[in-house]
Amino acid sequence: MEINQSASKIMQQANKLAEFTAMEGGLLRAYLTPEHRQAHQQIADWMTEAGLQVWEDSVGNQWGRKVASNPTLPTLMIGSHSDTVANAGKYDGNLGVLLAIEAMQVLSDIDLPFNIDIVAFADEEGTRFNTTLIGSSAVAGCFQSNWLDIEDNDGISMRQAMLDFGLQPEIAGHDQYTKEQLLAYLEVHIEQGPVLESKDLAVGVVTAIAGAKRYQFNVRGMAGHAGTVPLDLRQDALCGVAQMISSIEYFASNHDVVATVGKCEVKPGAVNVIPGEVNFTLDIRSQDQAILESSCVTLLNQLEAIAQERQLTFQSEKIYQAEAVPCNSKLQQQWAEVVEQQTQKEACLLHSGAGHDAMVIAKIADIAMLFVRCEKGISHNPREQVMTSDVGVALTCLVEMVKKLAVSG
Amino acid sequence: MEINQSASKIMQQANKLAEFTAMEGGLLRAYLTPEHRQAHQQIADWMTEAGLQVWEDSVGNQWGRKVASNPTLPTLMIGSHSDTVANAGKYDGNLGVLLAIEAMQVLSDIDLPFNIDIVAFADEEGTRFNTTLIGSSAVAGCFQSNWLDIEDNDGISMRQAMLDFGLQPEIAGHDQYTKEQLLAYLEVHIEQGPVLESKDLAVGVVTAIAGAKRYQFNVRGMAGHAGTVPLDLRQDALCGVAQMISSIEYFASNHDVVATVGKCEVKPGAVNVIPGEVNFTLDIRSQDQAILESSCVTLLNQLEAIAQERQLTFQSEKIYQAEAVPCNSKLQQQWAEVVEQQTQKEACLLHSGAGHDAMVIAKIADIAMLFVRCEKGISHNPREQVMTSDVGVALTCLVEMVKKLAVSG
Repeated sequence: MEINQSASKIMQQANKLAEFTAMEGGLLRAYLTPEHRQAHQQIADWMTEAGLQVWEDSVGNQWGRKVASNPTLPTLMIGSHSDTVANAGKYDGNLGVLLAIEAMQVLSDIDLPFNIDIVAFADEEGTRFNTTLIGSSAVAGCFQSNWLDIEDNDGISMRQAMLDFGLQPEIAGHDQYTKEQLLAYLEVHIEQGPVLESKDLAVGVVTAIAGAKRYQFNVRGMAGHAGTVPLDLRQDALCGVAQMISSIEYFASNHDVVATVGKCEVKPGAVNVIPGEVNFTLDIRSQDQAILESSCVTLLNQLEAIAQERQLTFQSEKIYQAEAVPCNSKLQQQWAEVVEQQTQKEACLLHSGAGHDAMVIAKIADIAMLFVRCEKGISHNPREQVMTSDVGVALTCLVEMVKKLAVSG
Repeated sequence: MEINQSASKIMQQANKLAEFTAMEGGLLRAYLTPEHRQAHQQIADWMTEAGLQVWEDSVGNQWGRKVASNPTLPTLMIGSHSDTVANAGKYDGNLGVLLAIEAMQVLSDIDLPFNIDIVAFADEEGTRFNTTLIGSSAVAGCFQSNWLDIEDNDGISMRQAMLDFGLQPEIAGHDQYTKEQLLAYLEVHIEQGPVLESKDLAVGVVTAIAGAKRYQFNVRGMAGHAGTVPLDLRQDALCGVAQMISSIEYFASNHDVVATVGKCEVKPGAVNVIPGEVNFTLDIRSQDQAILESSCVTLLNQLEAIAQERQLTFQSEKIYQAEAVPCNSKLQQQWAEVVEQQTQKEACLLHSGAGHDAMVIAKIADIAMLFVRCEKGISHNPREQVMTSDVGVALTCLVEMVKKLAVSG
């Protein structure tokens, strides 16, 4: 009963946080804005109610500490982010912050052999300055001082925005954590995908945050008259790209990667003209960096071979990459034990295709993540939805995980 | 030697006609314009020089008659069109008109058992009024009086344009030919495709003008995050369309059709979003109407099956169709004999994927076409090019064809 009440409270708190928005009729809360200030004030109040000692760090992250009876003990960090994309849902990031605070409420009478630092990272999405994960980067010692020169769409630099917010940009990131201080980092987050829903499970244990690479491809053949050029004399760029897309799909379905062709632009693009040129993109991800690397090599060779066979030119450019980050195996195992105990179902292990603060904190701590089912996998969208009962399961799992760590060390 | 001089003369005449243009630095000659008037005046002069009796018909086509010694004999019609698309080449249509006039010059001393009417159709391309084949339609009795209301881009109706040109719109098309008058219709035209060049042949005999159908397809799946949705839970519209395009290509390569997907538009079209919707087109042609019809049925069923298997919705709309028009078999045979005699090579029989005036004149006469090689198959482009030697071959073949018809009847 108590957990159900806590879950309902978290849902109400998520609604309350969604009121701190810069967007009429929708949710938008960007870094170093009045909404950031309001939301963090509210979060600080809830942290205080949960018995935590609160402070704001050098880049505007909001912290709350449950101090151990021996305050020199190491620290378990738990959190997620409080900022949002434009026209966001209410649970991405925010749910993880609220669950962490409420878990501290539940555990308030229990003395633990470690400090617990709850954190609301002030920027994960990069909505304002187009560079992501600012909050966790500062904590992990990766804040880059040249970021201070980045300007938002109104020409306001991050430096100026920090000053306006009441921060001191010259010491941004100087209060970073070190490996020695930290026991581990836990993050609960909505899945943002449909896997848990398809398996009818409330929560799942994250194995890794996928690495990703993105490519821009250009394929050129020869444009021509759709009526007068026989098939065997064509160099149809789109027919070549169709074969490439199918081969990408086939490769991904037989290897441990997900791959997506999201853009495909055909030139000249007339009903009666053979396509002479196609530009398309590939987004490819894997939880295993070695598999990602080798897959890209194999796949690009395949695409080149298709082009060559069809007398098409093929050019590729890598436009983005991020390394895969595994979650700690022992922590995964502990999450799984907790989940199985609480749900009486085998724990679902799944990787995260999207990036999270945990992948930065991994530089200074063992990380572990728990995913919460969200409706139809929809995220970054006002239709983002979670079930109160699932929030209850996630809260119980988080509380039990903390207790388990207290026992196991 | 005489034929070589004639071929050079035709090339010079083509250059001359290209001077009658509405477009600075390029060729554009549209229906009922000052350029139409100038070009037809020039053509009439050349017709007169070739000993022809000249007149302009009710829609502005230019005619020249080589009168038989018995003028009540039937008529062999030979011609092509004198109008152009925007930024056109010099040979599309125009070459056929010039060859016909020059053939009459060559045959000027020979008495034939039929009249020969040489025609320069004033509109085939539909550049000005967006309705094609106006000139030949009038001759074949298919001029539609409601065309008079069609306006050009400046809001000038075809009726007004005819009045301005000195025509009487109320009798447009009233001077149509009848089946009884006509022995046959011959047209020489550049191939506008690469087949003859690939076979190293100057000319080829046309078997038919292909029928065509065009479709607009809409395929819908489910958009989603490129990182968080596993492959087996995707309804990726572009992966489905890639398979469809490959199946169209495979079908066409195994059946007597050419098929082209010229447009393909992906939504939302972002590098990290699974395509939720794709719109694409199909242009499919065959020289055999029955094959075209059955191919469309089979192919649309295949596309629907692919969509169904992938849980995608599939909608199709037919946006254009034109029936296939066969060339007369006996005339094809006679062309082939002439070509083989002149070139000492086996005649290449090929169909026309593009439309021509002959397909309208087929309503009132047996038709036959000869194609002339053009460089790389390029047409509707300033780079359109033919070789003078090929023009010589085409001229000889046309002259010999007329002589053959004089003997065979």
